[in-house]
Amino acid sequence: MTSGFSVLPVEGLPELREGDDLAALVADRVELRDGDVVVVAQKAVSKVEGRVVALDGIEPSARAREIAGAETDPRRIEVILREATELVRVRPPLVIARTRHGFVCGSAGVDASNAPERDTVVLLPLDPDASAAALREGLRARTGAEVGVIVTDSFGRPWRAGTTDVAIGVAGVEAIRDLAGERDPVGYELHATRIAIADEIAGAAQLVFGKLDRVPVAVVRGLDVLGDGRAVDLVIPPDRDLFRA
Amino acid sequence: MTSGFSVLPVEGLPELREGDDLAALVADRVELRDGDVVVVAQKAVSKVEGRVVALDGIEPSARAREIAGAETDPRRIEVILREATELVRVRPPLVIARTRHGFVCGSAGVDASNAPERDTVVLLPLDPDASAAALREGLRARTGAEVGVIVTDSFGRPWRAGTTDVAIGVAGVEAIRDLAGERDPVGYELHATRIAIADEIAGAAQLVFGKLDRVPVAVVRGLDVLGDGRAVDLVIPPDRDLFRA
Repeated sequence: MTSGFSVLPVEGLPELREGDDLAALVADRVELRDGDVVVVAQKAVSKVEGRVVALDGIEPSARAREIAGAETDPRRIEVILREATELVRVRPPLVIARTRHGFVCGSAGVDASNAPERDTVVLLPLDPDASAAALREGLRARTGAEVGVIVTDSFGRPWRAGTTDVAIGVAGVEAIRDLAGERDPVGYELHATRIAIADEIAGAAQLVFGKLDRVPVAVVRGLDVLGDGRAVDLVIPPDRDLFRA
Repeated sequence: MTSGFSVLPVEGLPELREGDDLAALVADRVELRDGDVVVVAQKAVSKVEGRVVALDGIEPSARAREIAGAETDPRRIEVILREATELVRVRPPLVIARTRHGFVCGSAGVDASNAPERDTVVLLPLDPDASAAALREGLRARTGAEVGVIVTDSFGRPWRAGTTDVAIGVAGVEAIRDLAGERDPVGYELHATRIAIADEIAGAAQLVFGKLDRVPVAVVRGLDVLGDGRAVDLVIPPDRDLFRA
């Protein structure tokens, strides 16, 4: 039986740049304990990994210009099209796309807000599970603590308004908790048995992130969730997705 | 700037029955403070409201028998069909439906697991926002504390595996936090500006609920989220849902 958990913002991080040692910056600001989950907003990871693209060098295609229309920078749309493996919905200038990771999200995860400079956009990490694993190793090397790491991004959802943060990178944490076969007190096998706990942790962390005041890292303490999930476990294969079948 | 928040399970609740005073049961077990958000799993609310149906009296329709097939109780499918205002997807015996509240979820929110007895199913509350408001009033009357209430259920999602808990009833809490018009440090207007914080709080609470050990209530403490949202704010009108357009 759990006695609860807490979500603590990691404050005082500087504006992040390519090559910054995120593990060191976090380890300097919080005393990590075994079992903690360090949750990092995608943009922080992307920035230190240099996943920032200057729009200056981008030549928009005809398709990008068409989607962009008069109000939107077609170079930004061009970057989105390059990041997408499939356009799921297009309502110009809005694009919902599948990324190479299998995620379905707005703008293929390409984001202009919070970019380091005005004419840049931030892309998703190439391999967010690997990013999470590297940060986990870095934190362990510096602190000795056995922690999990989740990288999050804000995704919209069909049928529901607003975004929630979900896990796009996972290391050392359960992604899905499967209760299949366990029985409730009356003896029924539990139906809604696969719980996306990494997404729930991501959403909890978002509540302290603060989009405006630069808190891209939080520590979730007191949950018993260390494990070996990966964010790809959270991507449902199209043929098994009843919501789309 | 927040200094973090905590999520505390409310332990020791009895098996709930129709007519139980949930506000009294919660108030007896936790010292509520102004600003707390009391998060309650839907089944707890439905049980005290008597939203439990005995399958004995249910005559399944031909359509219910067809969907149920050989392995599933057609009376349970019949109840689902009666709760649904629209069948969004059917892959027998699985049904994803829109409810009268506008929610799109598996089995129209009808659940057999954790039902009080074997041949019963639990329905969603008739008006979960009203359920949340009544519980909030009850808690205020008993404790004097100004709290928010969220009623949650576990929903599947397109494109992503597993369920997360989302808010199906809200009282005294923000549902959506809208950052539109606010600008990030570089000066860009923020794009992913509508954050479904009630859903993120619901998911955080689920992490301590425990499906097996009967912890259907949690207290979220330390967030600055009291407001006047409703769960219906979280339902996106079909014509404005880019994910479905």
